[in-house]
Amino acid sequence: MTGWLRVVGLGPGDDALVTPEVRAALAEATDVIGYFPYVARVDPRDGLTLHGSDNRVEVDRAEHALRLAAGGARVVIVSSGDPGVFAMASALFEALEQRPALHGLDIRILPGITAMLAASASAGAPLGHDFCAINLSDNLKPWALVERRLRLAAQADFAMAFYNPRSASRPHRFAQVLDILRHECGPHRLITFARAVTTRDERVTTVTLAEATPEMADMRTVVIVGNAATRRVGRFVYTPRRAE
Amino acid sequence: MTGWLRVVGLGPGDDALVTPEVRAALAEATDVIGYFPYVARVDPRDGLTLHGSDNRVEVDRAEHALRLAAGGARVVIVSSGDPGVFAMASALFEALEQRPALHGLDIRILPGITAMLAASASAGAPLGHDFCAINLSDNLKPWALVERRLRLAAQADFAMAFYNPRSASRPHRFAQVLDILRHECGPHRLITFARAVTTRDERVTTVTLAEATPEMADMRTVVIVGNAATRRVGRFVYTPRRAE
Repeated sequence: MTGWLRVVGLGPGDDALVTPEVRAALAEATDVIGYFPYVARVDPRDGLTLHGSDNRVEVDRAEHALRLAAGGARVVIVSSGDPGVFAMASALFEALEQRPALHGLDIRILPGITAMLAASASAGAPLGHDFCAINLSDNLKPWALVERRLRLAAQADFAMAFYNPRSASRPHRFAQVLDILRHECGPHRLITFARAVTTRDERVTTVTLAEATPEMADMRTVVIVGNAATRRVGRFVYTPRRAE
Repeated sequence: MTGWLRVVGLGPGDDALVTPEVRAALAEATDVIGYFPYVARVDPRDGLTLHGSDNRVEVDRAEHALRLAAGGARVVIVSSGDPGVFAMASALFEALEQRPALHGLDIRILPGITAMLAASASAGAPLGHDFCAINLSDNLKPWALVERRLRLAAQADFAMAFYNPRSASRPHRFAQVLDILRHECGPHRLITFARAVTTRDERVTTVTLAEATPEMADMRTVVIVGNAATRRVGRFVYTPRRAE
């Protein structure tokens, strides 16, 4: 039996956004590994072992997956969204880097609908022009780098998507983000808070930066800031393709 | 009969990357509208009219879709990739802006796997840290703005994904992009050329900026430039989650 490893994206929540490619990998797997709530999205069946684990153990989880696949198992690591966007694919390669003997293993990354694309679709098309994606968590990078990227992104007039905007351990950080944005982009810039997109808890709200408060975001929220041309049309918000 | 309009993403090429949500919309549609090669990906059936049109008529196409839906048709506008990323969603809202009487129409955007996510997955995880997406076409914006965004993105140490890197009408532009990147990021920075990802023509190549030449990209290529920490592991390229 030849083992393999797939790192897959389950999309933002709705099963109708899981690609057939990912479904096929799950159907052939012997082992599914991931953060508890993502593993809970996979239906149990005979011959499949579900390995749920806690958050913040990404590299341990990746090493576990590599060991199982090297032993002949067909292993799927599940991420929400897309595995390559602030998710498990990079953690897997960090672990693989330490195990040169396993570089020949059959490994593939299977893309998924990342949260910002689902959020943008629910809101309209706020990412319809050049944009950037920033993980606002400072667990793995200095906060000064986050601030620097915010300022440069605003100067480039990128639309911006923010992942992990606000956590219990650093509630004041997102208030600082809003202050920087108001300073760089002015009070009238549109900002969209998209919570739990594509689930029954979905709530998508667009306000101006002047109206935005830190409490509008939590860890289930993706935040999208428009560029200077982003505007409302009917109940939607969108960024035109054209720029001057 | 109540009409509706969906703007959907067919993903980068492989039908196994079309979401069930998009499949369901296509199954219920009376009319499918889009650029010829994307409409050609939809199977003909009784009761479905396929309206293929040429490139660069995006707003005409959107107006056509709005008229049909207002008349009671169930209309799907197809984009490749994700409709909200350099595709038809913004064009639809540009057309909708001119038709306030239609603001109550049943319109939804259905996300898809955009090319950069499929390209990143094929290469490994080069977008595994903060990144930006830039459309290098200057059809709808001044070239000076493209150059400015490239420089600011490099200064922010974003990984970068480029759409529409090179066209027959402006072959010299991509050479200028490579010059700017070499100046800002140095010769050792990794750059990935991902052509026709997920199709049988897929070819994914990673080189250094010193080795990169304009001919490595064409209009079917997505280009991904790593950040300062992006590196190879085995046959993959990835960007670590951590930054200093």
